[in-house]
Amino acid sequence: MKLATYRINHTTPRLGVVQDNHMIDLEDVAKIKQETLPLTMLDLIDAGLDEVQRIQQLIDSLTDEEKSNCYYPLSNVTFLAPIPKPRKNIFGIGLNYTEHVAESARTLDTSNELPQQPVIFSKPPTAVIGTDEYIIHNPKLTQQLDWEVELAVIIGKKGKYVPKEEALDHVFGYTVINDISARDCRRSGQWIVSKGQDTFAPMGPVLVTKDEIPDPHNLNLSLTLNGVEKQSSNTKFMLFNINDLIEDLSTVFTLEPGDIIATGTPAGVGAGRAPQEWMWDGDVVKATVENIGTITNTIKELN
Amino acid sequence: MKLATYRINHTTPRLGVVQDNHMIDLEDVAKIKQETLPLTMLDLIDAGLDEVQRIQQLIDSLTDEEKSNCYYPLSNVTFLAPIPKPRKNIFGIGLNYTEHVAESARTLDTSNELPQQPVIFSKPPTAVIGTDEYIIHNPKLTQQLDWEVELAVIIGKKGKYVPKEEALDHVFGYTVINDISARDCRRSGQWIVSKGQDTFAPMGPVLVTKDEIPDPHNLNLSLTLNGVEKQSSNTKFMLFNINDLIEDLSTVFTLEPGDIIATGTPAGVGAGRAPQEWMWDGDVVKATVENIGTITNTIKELN
Repeated sequence: MKLATYRINHTTPRLGVVQDNHMIDLEDVAKIKQETLPLTMLDLIDAGLDEVQRIQQLIDSLTDEEKSNCYYPLSNVTFLAPIPKPRKNIFGIGLNYTEHVAESARTLDTSNELPQQPVIFSKPPTAVIGTDEYIIHNPKLTQQLDWEVELAVIIGKKGKYVPKEEALDHVFGYTVINDISARDCRRSGQWIVSKGQDTFAPMGPVLVTKDEIPDPHNLNLSLTLNGVEKQSSNTKFMLFNINDLIEDLSTVFTLEPGDIIATGTPAGVGAGRAPQEWMWDGDVVKATVENIGTITNTIKELN
Repeated sequence: MKLATYRINHTTPRLGVVQDNHMIDLEDVAKIKQETLPLTMLDLIDAGLDEVQRIQQLIDSLTDEEKSNCYYPLSNVTFLAPIPKPRKNIFGIGLNYTEHVAESARTLDTSNELPQQPVIFSKPPTAVIGTDEYIIHNPKLTQQLDWEVELAVIIGKKGKYVPKEEALDHVFGYTVINDISARDCRRSGQWIVSKGQDTFAPMGPVLVTKDEIPDPHNLNLSLTLNGVEKQSSNTKFMLFNINDLIEDLSTVFTLEPGDIIATGTPAGVGAGRAPQEWMWDGDVVKATVENIGTITNTIKELN
């Protein structure tokens, strides 16, 4: 199921299902069917994948008459980030594709050796935006605004010390994150100012439940800047795959429903190019992961 | 006002005021006075300092008869962390006292130069515990478990680009944090695994509203391990004071009510000693900030 948080006609954020080229509004479905349904993405994640199945059954049972009261053309809706306000910082994974480790070592201050353990950082909830929202470039903070397309994993089940064999049982679904990074904002090596600024976590456009992604380790991911392809790879090239990451993260932190893990970016970032390339006012960046979709964002310079 | 989140007789967490050697339960006060009051610390922070004043007036108007229905002896209550579940990761500030910069440079991998800008990292909400809860030592993750007493600032008002002159207007109050740090858990220089493990953010015992702390830049802070003093300093020695930190952080991130900033630790951590000292099973660590209180935690080794 493709789930979305969206607005229509300036309403408060609503939860919907993207299907048949329409947004199916779940509050409307609940009213029509006289059922109680979760009305936010986090509530649905808490309810779990059984609830997703029940929602699909309710949608399948809609008559044409009923559909006319809960189906909205996609052209009429505004997608927000699937989880507009996560309950904690997003977990980001650095240096998780071989060639990106090499390009980073050439041009940033990171090691050329492959990491022995996942490199973890965080992006606060205030960094999250949806597709078609502006990425704000504050020129007083950075002159090195960079892109990073990533597959993001949404945790569905609480877990500590999760063995890698059981890790995917803890996944609710997947989305796309563009891990915007200001390369000149590291402080004593810490990345949170570089990666955590407001608007630096474009996410979406939808959250795809895991039943629709049979193999998350074989998804093409790519990124274009002003229509020119800058990154193109496949999640099979991750150094630490999703099972490894969940095992490792859950050894350190209790993972909770709604947690988001951005699994790292492949080669092709602006910092790794010769000459280096950065994003500027008006640039349009599109990050795509196969079977999920594309988030499109325009850079806007802060006045 | 000294605010606490606490339990009595295994109840769910309740919000209370510590006064007259008692815990005054705010749900009880609300019932007695037939008023609506916030029932969690985050709800109270959202309501703001005017609500704190109103609560004080309600408490002041209690008759002795009414007091007997909402006053509980402190010996009967269990303090939890004032904010048991923050809405995002705690902002931590590294290297914010001169002598701690020096001791870190001697024994860790940080620079001997004073930072030109605040060094920021984060601790997830799952790291938070209260006084008298165990700090869990996982010997498979670390053999270098260290302490760091810190003054923590609780943000009360949303803000972006807050000038330092107005910064304290955004403060709701203060508490104590022990910024537990596993020195051997840095990964590619990132500190979140070192500082973000479950139980690594003991906090409390109370949240003191800012009206009771006329000068947050003149508070003694100290820490003992098994009764032996290891840290003793004063918040006046911060490199970046609270005004600086709020101005800087709010340039990068939108600050929101309930945000927590741990303002850094003075010299005397275990990593800086010769020979180095670490915490082990059964050790008792007490972190104190003047006018707020002491959090006491015992180390428990994971089986």
